[in-house]
Amino acid sequence: MQRVLDYLKQHQSRFVAELCDYLRLPSVSAQPQHKKDLHACAEWLVAHCQKIGLDAQLCPTRGYPVVIAKTPRTKSKNTRPHFMVYGHYDVQPPEPLELWHSPPFAPRIADNNLYARGSTDNKGQHFAHLKAVEAYLKTDTPLPCDLTFVIEGEEEVGSKSLSDFLKKNRRELMCEAIVVSDTGMPSPKHPALGYSLRGIIAFEITLHGPARDLHSGGFGGAVDNPAMALSQLLAQLRDKNGRITIPGFYDGVAPLTAYERKEYSRLPVTDAALQKLIGVKKLFGERGFTANEQRSARPTFEINGLTSGYQGEGSKTIIPSWARAKITCRLVPDQKPEHVRKIVLAHLKKICPPTVRLEIEAGHGAEAYFVSPTGPQAQAALRALELAFGCQPVLMREGGSIPILNQFKKILGTDSLLLGLGLPDDNAHSPDEKFSLDCFAKGQAMSAYLWRELSRV
Amino acid sequence: MQRVLDYLKQHQSRFVAELCDYLRLPSVSAQPQHKKDLHACAEWLVAHCQKIGLDAQLCPTRGYPVVIAKTPRTKSKNTRPHFMVYGHYDVQPPEPLELWHSPPFAPRIADNNLYARGSTDNKGQHFAHLKAVEAYLKTDTPLPCDLTFVIEGEEEVGSKSLSDFLKKNRRELMCEAIVVSDTGMPSPKHPALGYSLRGIIAFEITLHGPARDLHSGGFGGAVDNPAMALSQLLAQLRDKNGRITIPGFYDGVAPLTAYERKEYSRLPVTDAALQKLIGVKKLFGERGFTANEQRSARPTFEINGLTSGYQGEGSKTIIPSWARAKITCRLVPDQKPEHVRKIVLAHLKKICPPTVRLEIEAGHGAEAYFVSPTGPQAQAALRALELAFGCQPVLMREGGSIPILNQFKKILGTDSLLLGLGLPDDNAHSPDEKFSLDCFAKGQAMSAYLWRELSRV
Repeated sequence: MQRVLDYLKQHQSRFVAELCDYLRLPSVSAQPQHKKDLHACAEWLVAHCQKIGLDAQLCPTRGYPVVIAKTPRTKSKNTRPHFMVYGHYDVQPPEPLELWHSPPFAPRIADNNLYARGSTDNKGQHFAHLKAVEAYLKTDTPLPCDLTFVIEGEEEVGSKSLSDFLKKNRRELMCEAIVVSDTGMPSPKHPALGYSLRGIIAFEITLHGPARDLHSGGFGGAVDNPAMALSQLLAQLRDKNGRITIPGFYDGVAPLTAYERKEYSRLPVTDAALQKLIGVKKLFGERGFTANEQRSARPTFEINGLTSGYQGEGSKTIIPSWARAKITCRLVPDQKPEHVRKIVLAHLKKICPPTVRLEIEAGHGAEAYFVSPTGPQAQAALRALELAFGCQPVLMREGGSIPILNQFKKILGTDSLLLGLGLPDDNAHSPDEKFSLDCFAKGQAMSAYLWRELSRV
Repeated sequence: MQRVLDYLKQHQSRFVAELCDYLRLPSVSAQPQHKKDLHACAEWLVAHCQKIGLDAQLCPTRGYPVVIAKTPRTKSKNTRPHFMVYGHYDVQPPEPLELWHSPPFAPRIADNNLYARGSTDNKGQHFAHLKAVEAYLKTDTPLPCDLTFVIEGEEEVGSKSLSDFLKKNRRELMCEAIVVSDTGMPSPKHPALGYSLRGIIAFEITLHGPARDLHSGGFGGAVDNPAMALSQLLAQLRDKNGRITIPGFYDGVAPLTAYERKEYSRLPVTDAALQKLIGVKKLFGERGFTANEQRSARPTFEINGLTSGYQGEGSKTIIPSWARAKITCRLVPDQKPEHVRKIVLAHLKKICPPTVRLEIEAGHGAEAYFVSPTGPQAQAALRALELAFGCQPVLMREGGSIPILNQFKKILGTDSLLLGLGLPDDNAHSPDEKFSLDCFAKGQAMSAYLWRELSRV
């Protein structure tokens, strides 16, 4: 292991230069004008994997190709464990360009950070894993396991082709665990293992009133105002303790264990820091839970948008014909998205007043994700984090959603370990995206330890 | 009087032809490209008034000119009463043109209706009064009073120049009553005297939450959603009986008298007809009042528009940074606009939760208008209506606002009589605007009787 760690240390500047080459390729999956760049990026990645000794290939899909790279398999009885590393080579659009302090595809290093679109999300993070494997291979250190890298090109546009790919290559991809470094840790001194993600349901409700916008002078007072009806409908869904009042909304919500709550209490993000970060006068959430628990371990009912009537300058004296709300609910283990959708919509229908007509448009849905944080694989991951970062790691539930983890579980039957290397100020999806070179280096060491620790389980 | 009525009957086709000439002039005050047309229209009107024997002139203002036309004054002791007729020669924009069945400025007669922009609003209505005076003058029938026509060119854009004009010509315009035919009657068999208009206050409230839109995965649950906070703020302002719950909101509201409520009960607009007209499943308003009372004699709190967060296609998982509502309250006699504004805004500040910041932008305001429907001038107007239309007129409160009537009252100290000749299906401000030629003719007769009846008061 020491040889591996020494190799990593010695070659750090070259690794950064290689990562810069990777980041120069503008692989923006959402923008059709970058189609060639995505293919070029995938080809660059395959060539790079081959160079470091992996058996790599481009796998075409209906969308952008998936890059598969395997460690050389031994000819022996082949009883070594097999792990997958998941990542994505596509990146978010760089716009608005005017807010960047240097061009998004011209990597720049400042204060030990590497600035470029895709640096933290996700090229830098999976590149750390590739460098760890390179160190094993180039130092002829025997890997205690087989590894397969699955690096897709459509993560930022919904991973449309990956499910099919998983189904087609199910046998080959069967493994003991999937390692995903695509999230974050709360501070450089708090490496983290994510063990849960929230699920989601999305829908839109429209209340229809008069057949057209009415003159508020001629009709106001004798007809219900859809904007007021919508306000009253939405208002009664959350009480003053921050509880969602829809009957059955909390059905199946797994309570936080004492162990988890203790782990939460170790997170370095204080309420004051959170309040400052988001710029509000006062935090607000479900009574009985801390802010960190509220935003990752509790379900929500969130209005994402409101639209009704006149929105221009000045005033227009109308009763709007309709009013609309876009809504998403974040879900937690073990809520069932279709059950929650059913009871929410049934409740809305029940409380909708007879003076307006309720129209509902259903959107997407995804289950929450959960893997036991006390299991042997989680413990192995925590040891690898502690060895690499030199401080005690934290356990974290993530508030967002990565739907592909549910596909991994469903199709391959395998759990994922979230070993995010991003920091809260990395500006993922925003201008001036960066990746800490310290996290990059420690991430490589963590990956080196990880295969040893995971293979011992 | 019979000579006057006979003259009117004899010359009806010529009157219609003259009105068509008047309507051919596209005097759209809101559209700068029609500037020349407005001046041409005002000049046409002055010339026409002179032709029928009035002492007419163009009075320049900072905007479009006011046309003043007086009946010849007698040299005698001059103790005859003096009345004013108010009207406007400017019209609404004709757009959307594709919805008209004939060009808006090419008058067309069908089914005894005259179709053209400005036919009912307001050229046809004040032209009826001009024709009545022509009949007096051309038949040498002595008028029992002096009359002054004040026809402005900026009514559709806020009557900006008229207040100054009234102040400057205050002495000359002092009169016993102002006659305004710029509203409507509920049916051809229900000529109406309007005796009240609602006032208004406008404002906009914005609730500010996070400094920027937040990712609902990373933060949802620990921060108040401004769209939800706005819904809850607005929702508690109206109870299920349709009452506005803001303390003091109904301060000063003059109760409907038994006489007025009896008059309301004679209106031909049924709840079923109203419901069909506006296309709702069910009417809704303040308990204890009929729909017609609710929409003209009761104050309202109306949301004219809602804006927050994401309004495009599909979903966007954000907590909006802010949420906004545009609001107007219709006021009734004797509510004071500034008092209502004060208590409404104070109440909003009081109930605004500490998790968001309330920003208020004040808009325009105007007092309600009221003239006693049992006074001698109102009774005289009712007699004129009954004589001309051959059926019993109704008394009506109007739900909308005509702020210039408050200026008449304030500057000249004079009450206005609303003798609207429009019908509910006249499409004022809409494509296919029309004016009933029957209302035109009966309006002329009403005007002829009116000066006799009013002068006897």
